[in-house]
Amino acid sequence: MSDEVVTLAHGAGGKASQTLIEGLLVPALAGSSGALQALADASVVAAGGARLAISSDSFVVRPLRFPGGSIGELAVNGTVNDLAVSGARALALTVALILEEGLDAAVLRAEVDALARAAAAAGVEVVGGDTKVVERGAADQLYVCTTGIGVLDPRARLAPDAIAAGDRVLVSGPIGQHGTAIMLARGSFELDAQLESDTCSLWPAVDALLDAAGTELHCVRDATRGGVASVLNELARASQVAITAREADVPVAPVVAAAAELLGIDPMYIANEGRLVAFVAPDAAERALAALRAVPGCEQAAAIGEVQPEPPGMVLVQTSFGGRRVMDQLVGDPLPRIC
Amino acid sequence: MSDEVVTLAHGAGGKASQTLIEGLLVPALAGSSGALQALADASVVAAGGARLAISSDSFVVRPLRFPGGSIGELAVNGTVNDLAVSGARALALTVALILEEGLDAAVLRAEVDALARAAAAAGVEVVGGDTKVVERGAADQLYVCTTGIGVLDPRARLAPDAIAAGDRVLVSGPIGQHGTAIMLARGSFELDAQLESDTCSLWPAVDALLDAAGTELHCVRDATRGGVASVLNELARASQVAITAREADVPVAPVVAAAAELLGIDPMYIANEGRLVAFVAPDAAERALAALRAVPGCEQAAAIGEVQPEPPGMVLVQTSFGGRRVMDQLVGDPLPRIC
Repeated sequence: MSDEVVTLAHGAGGKASQTLIEGLLVPALAGSSGALQALADASVVAAGGARLAISSDSFVVRPLRFPGGSIGELAVNGTVNDLAVSGARALALTVALILEEGLDAAVLRAEVDALARAAAAAGVEVVGGDTKVVERGAADQLYVCTTGIGVLDPRARLAPDAIAAGDRVLVSGPIGQHGTAIMLARGSFELDAQLESDTCSLWPAVDALLDAAGTELHCVRDATRGGVASVLNELARASQVAITAREADVPVAPVVAAAAELLGIDPMYIANEGRLVAFVAPDAAERALAALRAVPGCEQAAAIGEVQPEPPGMVLVQTSFGGRRVMDQLVGDPLPRIC
Repeated sequence: MSDEVVTLAHGAGGKASQTLIEGLLVPALAGSSGALQALADASVVAAGGARLAISSDSFVVRPLRFPGGSIGELAVNGTVNDLAVSGARALALTVALILEEGLDAAVLRAEVDALARAAAAAGVEVVGGDTKVVERGAADQLYVCTTGIGVLDPRARLAPDAIAAGDRVLVSGPIGQHGTAIMLARGSFELDAQLESDTCSLWPAVDALLDAAGTELHCVRDATRGGVASVLNELARASQVAITAREADVPVAPVVAAAAELLGIDPMYIANEGRLVAFVAPDAAERALAALRAVPGCEQAAAIGEVQPEPPGMVLVQTSFGGRRVMDQLVGDPLPRIC
């Protein structure tokens, strides 16, 4: 990290985040076991004979409530999903709250209830927590940090390294809904549209993929900050492969497409909170996609591209007009505090 | 929680915190396993055949750096200590950062280094993390949420329920240093004094106590927010016993006593970040105290009181003048954001 101050882009999941993580955090904090990895959604820890996955996330979304969800649901699903895409069903969650002095107790109660409901829906138990209160103006209402632990599923052999040329790229449903729902909730533009965030637990989708494809499921990612484009870029770099996406095959709801058009953003960069990207060996791709489409909420899952050996580290998009362009890493932050 | 808004007292570790935790958070969030308990420093989770302890804490201390430490060290030691007093050595930590836009990169780097050094000193590995950035004015520089996991030590049978009449109460060193160091760092009063925070890992102290007393070590607590007085009150209520503390036997550094005098605060209510309170069966008390005093940093450990059957739920102090008074729960927040 060569910048002199922290900017919103450092939290956006794109190039600046990567600079911060790879340039400062990982070099300083990584221990000898190699468990701390820049790209991992969750970390693997051996404890008492078990292979555990653990993941922590802070949630600072604004506004606290938005169509289809709120910070409480996001805080549960976000952490459950980081474990899920690492091949672990979440067993237990902790919840640490940072509250702003003066926060309406009804707002707090609503979010605690949302946390509880989302945890019940995801089949995970809240086992511990912490509460801190800061003075007025030292936080924006309510921040939530959730940590989840789970046991790695024996069916799972998921890793960026496992991605190979020929792999098919699947997405579990229409992309960009969470980020667009947040923008609509903020009144960022005049669009008389109904759209709900995609926030949900992804474990049922991962479970179905593992059942259908087993070890032919090579890697799964939760396409949150920075969207599908950021996941593809991170993995192309990490695995030193090329990834080609076919624009016409990427499911995008009309209202998301319209909002993206208005803002001049590619929906591929818009955040999701309940959409995964999966890399599957070609032989298993068809049955993996069928299994995914059978999961409630994933009916519109699609195969959107494939992995190629060259040029390594690059993501290419086949446009609807038949051309090809590079889909680069996100620079800047089009939408701060979307999770 | 019957109050209509969140106040600083809700984060202070006293009566209002208890109302929030027992009145709102635990009833809404507790699952069927009973793992979520209002008073626990850490929670116990069975995962893959192992009995794990897990604990999460947010750190919002102001200022970020103070004599003897900084938010980075506090964030590691606070979580390591919650596990330690639950009978588990910390194995792995995750670190979630909430950064304010405009934070000086040098400040961030210093705290990341402090986290790394404290983790190395405590023998725990940082395995994962997360970074969020919020706009200027939506946080105060830097908040840290750490989560630790560890495996429960087979020697440990620690629980508030295990506390019995006759148990001796030990503290691991002079109390009130962390809170006083923070007040000095804030320039809260004119006191030309050198004092460092007590922040440190308590695992060596717990390890020594377990070795010396085994199952005769009944309960251990980290006396953080609300100080030793809050720990004694919580445990007297939870175990339905009375606890008597002898004021003259409580180790207090002269500068802490002077600061407390100036502010009209009892040092028993001032926060510590590296002091434990232990309850030991009378037979084992002497060897437990000797073992504790042999741990670097705990040379001034002392036996400060004992457990009595009556009156249940009450903490009594034998004053230096020979009188007795009730030492009640903390009301309000004498010192916001000390951790």
